[in-house]
Amino acid sequence: MNRQQLVEQIKAKRSFLCVGLDTDITKLPMHLQKQPGALFAFNKAIIDATKDYCVSYKINTAFYEALGLKGWEAMEQTVDYIPATHFTIADAKRGDIGNTSTQYAKAFFETLKFDAVTVAPYMGEDSIRPFMEYDNKFVIVLGLTSNKGARDFELQKMGDSFLYEKVISTVAMWGTPANLMFVVGATQTSELANIRNMIPDHFLLVPGVGAQGGSLQEVSTVGMNKDCGLLVNASRAIIYASAGEDFAEAAGNVAKDYQQEMSGYLRF
Amino acid sequence: MNRQQLVEQIKAKRSFLCVGLDTDITKLPMHLQKQPGALFAFNKAIIDATKDYCVSYKINTAFYEALGLKGWEAMEQTVDYIPATHFTIADAKRGDIGNTSTQYAKAFFETLKFDAVTVAPYMGEDSIRPFMEYDNKFVIVLGLTSNKGARDFELQKMGDSFLYEKVISTVAMWGTPANLMFVVGATQTSELANIRNMIPDHFLLVPGVGAQGGSLQEVSTVGMNKDCGLLVNASRAIIYASAGEDFAEAAGNVAKDYQQEMSGYLRF
Repeated sequence: MNRQQLVEQIKAKRSFLCVGLDTDITKLPMHLQKQPGALFAFNKAIIDATKDYCVSYKINTAFYEALGLKGWEAMEQTVDYIPATHFTIADAKRGDIGNTSTQYAKAFFETLKFDAVTVAPYMGEDSIRPFMEYDNKFVIVLGLTSNKGARDFELQKMGDSFLYEKVISTVAMWGTPANLMFVVGATQTSELANIRNMIPDHFLLVPGVGAQGGSLQEVSTVGMNKDCGLLVNASRAIIYASAGEDFAEAAGNVAKDYQQEMSGYLRF
Repeated sequence: MNRQQLVEQIKAKRSFLCVGLDTDITKLPMHLQKQPGALFAFNKAIIDATKDYCVSYKINTAFYEALGLKGWEAMEQTVDYIPATHFTIADAKRGDIGNTSTQYAKAFFETLKFDAVTVAPYMGEDSIRPFMEYDNKFVIVLGLTSNKGARDFELQKMGDSFLYEKVISTVAMWGTPANLMFVVGATQTSELANIRNMIPDHFLLVPGVGAQGGSLQEVSTVGMNKDCGLLVNASRAIIYASAGEDFAEAAGNVAKDYQQEMSGYLRF
């Protein structure tokens, strides 16, 4: 999917919601836990119930890797099941020396056909470049994250800037808004305005709304650009909205609530 | 495996060699490429031929993920096949918010029974802590890497220190030499001396010898501590020593050369 197609989806659905499939096998509704293939069965029901209200799905690879081979299989099934109209993100936070990053790009863009993958910036340019060599694919680089540990390094000063500012301004020179996005946590709204100012055109993937406490209204007010430029992710608030047999319906209702709130913030 | 057991292995074998199984399916000898299970067959032969000369194996997860389900299966088979006497490292460079890092720790320490996993530090303390909650397991945090991109952020100044120094001194406060190691590239020998001074007791995982051009002698001279304190990794120089039917024998010979050179540098 390219940038223009993503913007068109946002306009058509009046939503910039990304549903995070951080599917923890121990948190599935009881009636599903005994089924073989429970993880994919859960994801399939969540996708069916939420797809009209979101434009993107983000698969957190850790939850699948924790289950080994079976988990990897469920991840493959899930990404294959997501409709082609939805922007798919492997939230994998990879990054290694050049020849290894090339293998990660192959893993997530060719073997698994994701539209985007999240990458950590610590190792610099050659760890990020291989992900930019695909047409209509995106690398989403960690800028400022929503966790407490962001204070340890990201929010430390490097010269006159914070490390996260140095990362964003440097990485932005390696790509374009057509192949590069950044992760910016919703819990850091004051910095979000600053980041939008630094990179007016890039899409931002914003986790931290919902269970982590970020405000959708604040994020939308300070983070939006003329093409929307935001993918706001909610995971636990949607997929665990109910632990009963109505889990999918409940997830759909929460996703619909997000969509309706988002519709009011859009400027087109 | 705990730190003392690792030191005993180093003493017994007079080697601190880690063999990197960065196994690229397109680089396997021709006669193997047509076999089903070629990746594991190759790794098995390499392990059989090198195990007497090394104390550790490092599996670069990217090369396995690039093959999808089959690759993940080959990784499981490989880690199960490595003798219990050898320290096993998942070179995965993971790292995410706390509840996600907990899933990665489960993936590499429980589902796959690795002794250690490499982790990127960008997201701070809660991204690293979950890996420290296992007895006799190690988190290996990226300090200063061997790639060109290390100049982009790791070797930029943060106050009076380089970022990599800030990372190492901060992370060292969260763990102990019994559950924490650092990655330090062999191509940065001048900084290796500085790092050894900062953390006299921790083990360092040193990639970059061999194909990437680092000097084993220099690394050993400046990086060793009283318990050796080094795991020096070579990947391509060993596993691709020959592209013919003698690939395993050739790998064994190169590993033996490393072991003999290392024996001369050990101080016990």
